[in-house]
Amino acid sequence: MSTERDILITEVALRDGSHAIAHQYTVEQVKKVAKALGEANVPYIEVAHGDGLGGSTLQYGLSRTNEMELIEAAVSVCGDSKVAVLVLPGIGTITDLKQAVSIGAKMARVATHVTEADVSAQHLSKAKEMGLETVGFLMMSHMAPVEKLVEQAKLMESYGADTVYMVDSAGALLPHQVKERVRALRQNLQVNVGFHGHNNLSLAMANTLAAIEEGAQRIDGSIRCLGAGAGNTQTEVLIAVLENMGIKTGIDLYKLMDTAEEVIAPLLQSPQEITRDNLVLGYAGVYSSFLLHAQRASKKYGIDSRDILIELGRRKVVGGQEDMIVDVADELARQRKAN
Amino acid sequence: MSTERDILITEVALRDGSHAIAHQYTVEQVKKVAKALGEANVPYIEVAHGDGLGGSTLQYGLSRTNEMELIEAAVSVCGDSKVAVLVLPGIGTITDLKQAVSIGAKMARVATHVTEADVSAQHLSKAKEMGLETVGFLMMSHMAPVEKLVEQAKLMESYGADTVYMVDSAGALLPHQVKERVRALRQNLQVNVGFHGHNNLSLAMANTLAAIEEGAQRIDGSIRCLGAGAGNTQTEVLIAVLENMGIKTGIDLYKLMDTAEEVIAPLLQSPQEITRDNLVLGYAGVYSSFLLHAQRASKKYGIDSRDILIELGRRKVVGGQEDMIVDVADELARQRKAN
Repeated sequence: MSTERDILITEVALRDGSHAIAHQYTVEQVKKVAKALGEANVPYIEVAHGDGLGGSTLQYGLSRTNEMELIEAAVSVCGDSKVAVLVLPGIGTITDLKQAVSIGAKMARVATHVTEADVSAQHLSKAKEMGLETVGFLMMSHMAPVEKLVEQAKLMESYGADTVYMVDSAGALLPHQVKERVRALRQNLQVNVGFHGHNNLSLAMANTLAAIEEGAQRIDGSIRCLGAGAGNTQTEVLIAVLENMGIKTGIDLYKLMDTAEEVIAPLLQSPQEITRDNLVLGYAGVYSSFLLHAQRASKKYGIDSRDILIELGRRKVVGGQEDMIVDVADELARQRKAN
Repeated sequence: MSTERDILITEVALRDGSHAIAHQYTVEQVKKVAKALGEANVPYIEVAHGDGLGGSTLQYGLSRTNEMELIEAAVSVCGDSKVAVLVLPGIGTITDLKQAVSIGAKMARVATHVTEADVSAQHLSKAKEMGLETVGFLMMSHMAPVEKLVEQAKLMESYGADTVYMVDSAGALLPHQVKERVRALRQNLQVNVGFHGHNNLSLAMANTLAAIEEGAQRIDGSIRCLGAGAGNTQTEVLIAVLENMGIKTGIDLYKLMDTAEEVIAPLLQSPQEITRDNLVLGYAGVYSSFLLHAQRASKKYGIDSRDILIELGRRKVVGGQEDMIVDVADELARQRKAN
């Protein structure tokens, strides 16, 4: 039986959601979730460390269970659903990808910062050689102007991506910005366009609908909002909204609602709310890893950590430039003294 | 010092939020919240039982503290902010309203079902006589076609409403439906248009932006989502989003964020999430009071309570018609047997 689907959903609770539970998934939990998602007819289920294959490190947080065991567990129970893996070049290797494929992963999503698509070339082409479906995943998309985003997406297309995702990692984009970007991607790419949103500004659903309106064909969701920061577009809610709009996903809404309530909610260490910290990250449009550094600098220089984060967002500081945080705090403190 | 405001915000956590904490507000809590909201320069603060003045009954839930004490407490500490009260004709009386005014309430919001604006005539005209700012509040707006909504809004305007609100009580409206409705109201009313949303479909923020885009000048929010069902448009997040869009509310964002985190979050008995029950209510577009009845009928007739609620939504069943729930369950059970 073939299923009619206008939009292809990828469920990311077993990858992005890993951040929300400090990478503590067990084989038992992953089996329960993946089985339920398979029964609800979710087409793609992403499984990996929150920072992708190989992410289990002191720097990114150690996983309780080896991710290959989790991928194998998901594959064993998810029926017709396909298991996807995320991989960030520099963290996850081709060897990691090969291993994931050998145990049943069917899709590789290769993620880079929005201005660094060139580092995805080898991973995307190797994934294609292995016969995988391929996705190029442009993170922190709000940081690049539209033309730059399109240029980088075209690079990923040239490396063999079947779909290019615009990823609003900080949950910072506004609906009109999503529309403008997805429209430009659709006009300039031959391949499919996807959207992955975060809810830090309570706009994940609005942005997802904006992306669909402009022709995005693939959408990520996390059931019960189980994702980094304030979580992602809440999958079971999205399916309900799309049903009310007459857009088909092929997913069984009742089964998904039951899974959210009975399987996912009990896993959550604390429910996904828009807290002050998550809101600030979305408002400033910066990496979540900056938060703690900014709070430390705030104490040292007597500047509100929010002012520091907003200034970092203005300067489009990226991961790896954490030393800029102290510079900015120092500069703001001098300015205040001078005024 | 006058404050420039493109949009006038009414904070409803001390009224709609009363539902979320089973009407257990104390004088101490209300003082703390209202003081903080006043310091953040929030123009209007609504204080009352969740179902409006006089709502403290066995039927709607007993308040821990007499609402007049809570109103008085809010007025005493909220500085330049104005205290608003909600009143539903049939529950709250003109006498209740007079008492609220005598202790400092400055705005009356008179609420009726979207097709029953005629019952607001007396309350609105008396409120006007008392020198109050007046709002007509059309609840369950998704249940009426656009023409009906406009007709009812015009009635409220004729009774003396300074603003008419479109209220998405069940959190059931989609952004394009909000746009269509607000546009029609703006075209047909002389007075201001407001919007009050709920987040059952994760669309409160999207719908609020849609309403503003079409010219709504007044918006309700609840800090930390503290409202009935899945809560309202989260006020502090809305202010952040509007700042990023260049729309002025005159509200101090940092103070509001701090209030949400430090004053409101500790009050919540459980955080505001989109649970299965809340999602079903938004998806079906029915009254929250139907939920328990539908779950009971589900057990008796062996029909999924969601199917019952969706059918009730299709038939646009309203509060007071709870006997229809059993009829619908019985009918669905017979249909299944026949098939």
